[in-house]
This record gives sequence, C-alpha cells and structure tokens, in this order.
Amino acid sequence: MDLFTGFLFKGLDQDQLAKIAAITREISMENGQKLFVEGEKATHIYILKEGAVELMTRVEPDLELPISMLRDPGDIFGSHALIAPYRYSLSARCEEAGTSLSIERSSLKKLMVADRGLECMIMRNLAEHFLDRLKETRQELKTHFRTLLKSMRS
Amino acid sequence: MDLFTGFLFKGLDQDQLAKIAAITREISMENGQKLFVEGEKATHIYILKEGAVELMTRVEPDLELPISMLRDPGDIFGSHALIAPYRYSLSARCEEAGTSLSIERSSLKKLMVADRGLECMIMRNLAEHFLDRLKETRQELKTHFRTLLKSMRS
Repeated sequence: MDLFTGFLFKGLDQDQLAKIAAITREISMENGQKLFVEGEKATHIYILKEGAVELMTRVEPDLELPISMLRDPGDIFGSHALIAPYRYSLSARCEEAGTSLSIERSSLKKLMVADRGLECMIMRNLAEHFLDRLKETRQELKTHFRTLLKSMRS
Repeated sequence: MDLFTGFLFKGLDQDQLAKIAAITREISMENGQKLFVEGEKATHIYILKEGAVELMTRVEPDLELPISMLRDPGDIFGSHALIAPYRYSLSARCEEAGTSLSIERSSLKKLMVADRGLECMIMRNLAEHFLDRLKETRQELKTHFRTLLKSMRS
C-alpha cells in the first residue's frame, strides 16, 4: 500500500485502498513514451512507481510548455479521467524509464458506485487538488502580469 | 427555486434544494461593497439574486486584476468556503447594487453530514468547476506566453 499516498487517496481506509489496489495493473514506461496526449479521451489514472514523468501543455504546434515533473513514487497523473468531460487536459511523457500502476476509469467508477463514502472522499480530494492547481496557475499569471507591468513602466 | 441553477446545485433533487433554500439568508449589497476579501477565512457561499459582483485578485498593493463579472441571477461565488483550507482566494466587490442569498458554511456542512448523497454531488460539482477554471487559467497563461514569444522573435 506504500504507493497509495497521493492526493487522490487521502482519507480512504485500508479496506478501500485494498479494493483500489486490486484493480491496478502495472505498466512499464520507456524513455520518451507518451502515456497520454492532451485532448484525448481520458480512460486511465496513473500512479508513478519508478522513473519520472513530465506533464506538459501544447502552446504552439511545435512547442510544449512544461507544467510539472513527477518523480516521487505515489505521484498521481491523469486524474481528469474522473471528471467530466473526461478528457486529458495535459500530455504526460516518460522522462526516465520506469513503471506505473494504471487504474481503468470504468473499474474505479464501479467501486465508487458500490461505496458512496469512497466516491465522496475521492471527489473531495479532486476538488481540493484542482483548487490548489488553480491557485498556483493564478500565481503564475500574476507573475507574468507583474513582469509585463514592469516592462511597460521602464 | 429559480435561483438554484448554479454549478454547485447540478444533480440535486427538489428535496435537497429545499433543504438548502431553508438555510439561506437574503442580504443587500451596496455599490462598491466588498462581500469578502482574498485570503480571509471563508465562512459563506453566495448566490447572486440581483445586481452585479466582480471577482478579482490582488497583483500589487494598489492593483487588482479582474477575474470575472457575475451578472446572472443564480451565479455562485465564495465556493472556496467548502474546500480546505477554507479561505477565499479572490475578492468579491459589488459593482451594481442588488441582493444575494448567503449560505453559512457550517449550516451547509450539517446538511452534507446528514445526506452523503448531497455531499457527493456538491464535491463532484466543485471538482468540475475548479477543473474548468484551471483550464481557462492555463489558456490565459498560454496566451501570455505566446505574446512573449512573439515579442522575443520580432
């Protein structure tokens, strides 16, 4: 259960974590491999086990902006698979070969239908996570804005 | 129930909406009045009834960046009151006098403890909402980035 430490699993009990562990599948990741691509239908959530994965977003046809680098075992990516419209809004690329656990959305959905408490906790964890990311992204926007102001003033 | 059309209430049944309506309080808003300030402890959620409210964030001590203008009856603001760390991450100022319904966080919390289904729906709605805002904010960041690239290339 050492890998189930990410934001998505906060507040879940051992029994709930065991049920989730039972529906995971281990996948290997090669250097440069794309795990998923921005805009694609989101079918899986991933838990990093070993290696490194970079999340990025496309700014221009030939330019991607890095959003974050995941290196810690237990790091979660692809959580958009649980929220409408169920599409990845970032791309994930393996930057250092390793392994991840993948969870099929439909399997996790079945667990959540059977256990409303589990669903509630996961939805709360997602809401907290997206709010955190939103605040971070607004901070970045403010930084850009301040830079722009400075350049206009000088 | 005409006011309970905002994102927070999606999927709730008439009985659940009636319970929420019973804990609202109508407040009047004067032109220029601050409903809440960024960073403050978030104790209330608001539903716009009449008038207009602007949401904004502080960039510099004397400069606030507008984030959105709410004008539609049913528009919701202050939803950060439901998510840890329970602090407003924006400020809300009345731009056109009117009225709003306010809901105390602790009262809504009681309803959610008594009705896990209600809690699940609200948490799912919040997760969807924050993910939408996150995607919008990332788009803005990309626009800034593209402008920067253009100015560097020219």
